[in-house]
Amino acid sequence: MDDQSAIPDIQMEQPRHKIDVDAVGVKDIIYPIEVEDRENKRQNTVAKISMLVELPDHFRGTHMSRFIEILHCYQQEFSLVNIDKLLHQIKQELQAAKAEIIINFPYFMKKAAPVSKVKSIMDYPCVFYGIDNGTEQQDFILEVNVPVITLCPCSKEISERGAHNQRAVVKIQVRYREFIWIEELIELAEANSSSPVYSLLKRSDEKYITEHAYDHPCFVEDVVRSVSVKLLEDERVTWFKVECESFESIHNHSAYAVIERDRRSAKVEDIK
Amino acid sequence: MDDQSAIPDIQMEQPRHKIDVDAVGVKDIIYPIEVEDRENKRQNTVAKISMLVELPDHFRGTHMSRFIEILHCYQQEFSLVNIDKLLHQIKQELQAAKAEIIINFPYFMKKAAPVSKVKSIMDYPCVFYGIDNGTEQQDFILEVNVPVITLCPCSKEISERGAHNQRAVVKIQVRYREFIWIEELIELAEANSSSPVYSLLKRSDEKYITEHAYDHPCFVEDVVRSVSVKLLEDERVTWFKVECESFESIHNHSAYAVIERDRRSAKVEDIK
Amino acid sequence: MDDQSAIPDIQMEQPRHKIDVDAVGVKDIIYPIEVEDRENKRQNTVAKISMLVELPDHFRGTHMSRFIEILHCYQQEFSLVNIDKLLHQIKQELQAAKAEIIINFPYFMKKAAPVSKVKSIMDYPCVFYGIDNGTEQQDFILEVNVPVITLCPCSKEISERGAHNQRAVVKIQVRYREFIWIEELIELAEANSSSPVYSLLKRSDEKYITEHAYDHPCFVEDVVRSVSVKLLEDERVTWFKVECESFESIHNHSAYAVIERDRRSAKVEDIK
Amino acid sequence: MDDQSAIPDIQMEQPRHKIDVDAVGVKDIIYPIEVEDRENKRQNTVAKISMLVELPDHFRGTHMSRFIEILHCYQQEFSLVNIDKLLHQIKQELQAAKAEIIINFPYFMKKAAPVSKVKSIMDYPCVFYGIDNGTEQQDFILEVNVPVITLCPCSKEISERGAHNQRAVVKIQVRYREFIWIEELIELAEANSSSPVYSLLKRSDEKYITEHAYDHPCFVEDVVRSVSVKLLEDERVTWFKVECESFESIHNHSAYAVIERDRRSAKVEDIK
Repeated sequence: MDDQSAIPDIQMEQPRHKIDVDAVGVKDIIYPIEVEDRENKRQNTVAKISMLVELPDHFRGTHMSRFIEILHCYQQEFSLVNIDKLLHQIKQELQAAKAEIIINFPYFMKKAAPVSKVKSIMDYPCVFYGIDNGTEQQDFILEVNVPVITLCPCSKEISERGAHNQRAVVKIQVRYREFIWIEELIELAEANSSSPVYSLLKRSDEKYITEHAYDHPCFVEDVVRSVSVKLLEDERVTWFKVECESFESIHNHSAYAVIERDRRSAKVEDIK
Repeated sequence: MDDQSAIPDIQMEQPRHKIDVDAVGVKDIIYPIEVEDRENKRQNTVAKISMLVELPDHFRGTHMSRFIEILHCYQQEFSLVNIDKLLHQIKQELQAAKAEIIINFPYFMKKAAPVSKVKSIMDYPCVFYGIDNGTEQQDFILEVNVPVITLCPCSKEISERGAHNQRAVVKIQVRYREFIWIEELIELAEANSSSPVYSLLKRSDEKYITEHAYDHPCFVEDVVRSVSVKLLEDERVTWFKVECESFESIHNHSAYAVIERDRRSAKVEDIK
Repeated sequence: MDDQSAIPDIQMEQPRHKIDVDAVGVKDIIYPIEVEDRENKRQNTVAKISMLVELPDHFRGTHMSRFIEILHCYQQEFSLVNIDKLLHQIKQELQAAKAEIIINFPYFMKKAAPVSKVKSIMDYPCVFYGIDNGTEQQDFILEVNVPVITLCPCSKEISERGAHNQRAVVKIQVRYREFIWIEELIELAEANSSSPVYSLLKRSDEKYITEHAYDHPCFVEDVVRSVSVKLLEDERVTWFKVECESFESIHNHSAYAVIERDRRSAKVEDIK
Repeated sequence: MDDQSAIPDIQMEQPRHKIDVDAVGVKDIIYPIEVEDRENKRQNTVAKISMLVELPDHFRGTHMSRFIEILHCYQQEFSLVNIDKLLHQIKQELQAAKAEIIINFPYFMKKAAPVSKVKSIMDYPCVFYGIDNGTEQQDFILEVNVPVITLCPCSKEISERGAHNQRAVVKIQVRYREFIWIEELIELAEANSSSPVYSLLKRSDEKYITEHAYDHPCFVEDVVRSVSVKLLEDERVTWFKVECESFESIHNHSAYAVIERDRRSAKVEDIK
């Protein structure tokens, strides 16, 4: 029935060294997907996908083509609910105790400019990480990268006019016990920086943003602290990591800060 | 009527140095688009877009936000026909003698494996370049990047067994007087290399491709020559550039070759 | 005495949110450095460097410029011994409980071709990670990325002639209790793949490598297992992570495998 | 004498299609080099190098290994004078009518901060392009990429306080009839932007730069025009291309402008 049956299956051989492989699979598959969208229900985007399984010490290799076959079944319905099923299917079809998927994609959101209210589309690089290891609950991480403005408090304070500012990226990763929208994390990052950025701005908006950024100076340290305080207050979040990288306009290198907290194994008062 | 009217328009000022700027505009906008698809009529993908105009010596700056506004109008209908109209609109709204657009995007194509006929999706990075300079016909270039296998003829000839082979990328750029499908250029690149590549292969397919590549060795020089011969025979093509970069498996650097020919200003016998 | 004294120091202010920042500092500084070389004592290269400290909850910001000042002192003597001192100095001058440095650089090694013995220079991307958290021993990780050939055992077995092969990268990261040369990790990766790669090969070498790779087929799973077995036998190594990414010639995506083992908290028989 | 003599030389065969290949060779070799330095005579850096030759229609392939052999001879003395000799040697040893080299490298320069005068090292990505086609003078292009600050004149004018600013990169490419230092092009780019950037700044310097940038607002159009005016006045320059890409802090895309002028075939009054 299977055209493959007469061809030797080298992957099923005994390996030379009997040692478990933590993860093995396919990396960097470029693939068109659909994801859930708070405003429009679904949106089309393009993902870079990696899929991995644990390989026990008695198999020489995994069957890489099965990852691609399974991926094809789910192409039209990438959501957290489906990743759940997809990971389960990978585990079954590849006879693995643990399956993992990493999905990078730009997420698009229509945003109104602050004064003129003209709308434009912004892209936010996102990542879904999903792990199913069978023994406990599945493990998911949602990552959102949000471009913002940081205006330097030190530069503003010491200068008689102006203040250096620049594009920065706030990266928020969360584990959660209740669903969180990508849009919520975008808003969180934007609210805790000097200003959001937009793809389309009229002059009235540019004036507003310039002054708003000047009135809300922040270091990368301030950004990650403010975002962390909000995530600590959010009961849905069980773990988070917040990073801010600021492409300093006065230097040729970046300023960077990071805070990571885990509520799963700690009391709230401990993790601050 | 316009909320902008009371705010000074610095871009319209006289520049300090009266010198024409060849091109000015916005670069690297990430944007969801739809493109024409030979099999399915339309496909969704994500583009990186740059849009530029010529700026005459009496304007200090261009109005960058207008590029984005115009882009929004065309989001759902990116095709060569529309780029035509889009460039015209840019010229008008930015009062420019010349307008230019560069659109990078992955193009997806369903491909059947050679023996098992299982289908899978492959991505091909493409670029549309469009220039409208008003005085003559619009100038378009279509670029397709096709991953293929190159198997080294020298390695095969001198070795008693095996032959080094590797992934290579064939980049084809064409100007044409009649429409050419992306799919046609993909097939051209694949037919003139050691073998196409696929995202999903059964063992029967892997056997076929391994032997097929071994039976069709080619240098990067062979690839660009074979593709060029076919493009020279194609009456629709007025100009082309063919490049092949092979990520040599025996080295940590690439082998590379390029052929460019222009039929617009030459007799066919001259350009070989 | 200090020209800075009259200018307010915003970084020393109380932060709005009293929360520790895990790490803060400068990222991606491009810098010329010298590193230890087993054959020539020292070699010149160029690094991309990040430097970070922990920031306690009572400081608003760190003094980013001090990182650069300290970096300048050590420019001519980057070695593991000096990273030791450098981390200590960062901790002191930035009043931090924890300091961290990440140094990416290409390491160059002269290699003789296998038959002709002609010598050429190969580059190996390396990373030094160093952490000083004061309470226990400093923590160092050495990472070496080694390009190699992988020839597919399945393709060889099922095909009547040839076998697909490609460039792959073996990434080895180690913690150790006794010094390990970059050269040792390079040799380890090369010995456990289908063949090393070279920048200069004569035809006699190309023949040798083609046949040698054909005679030593390996999956990415085989590579990480073989390297792991050797690292488990090496008493100097206390922790390691071995990855292999193979840029499959028959696909447009990679095959990938990883094994990580920690001997610090485990018996050797457990960690296999 | 040569161990190669008994092994067939496939490259010397007749190609299937008799068509000239414009350029063929090796790409992206990572290599340690020394370059001329105005202040310190020589500096060590790391290059990414490509080397190409024209291939006439009667040879099937070029001998890629000879590029690497020649490269090894010149490793310690990369300068424009030597590129001259190196290109000549490539032409001879590969029996080519035309030879080409492209050398990408970071160039390092010690810079004093504007007020405190503390010195630090900055990196400037550079490229040397060299072509020897035998029939006329050799053709060289020097490219320097200079990070600077651009502060938006529009944002400053329309806002009551502050002005958005950001890191930008000025790329200058020149052909010349008389030697030009990399340092001269760096100074030119810095003098015609809102401010230079530095790797090490004290608070007094940060105040100075913030105010200086605020006092010297410029669009990308202004930057390329000002630099072009200076290059048009420089009798040594026979051709140039000036680009400025500004990583807008208020957007997630760049603003970009370019001016290219050729004095070789034009009167000066024409090329403005």
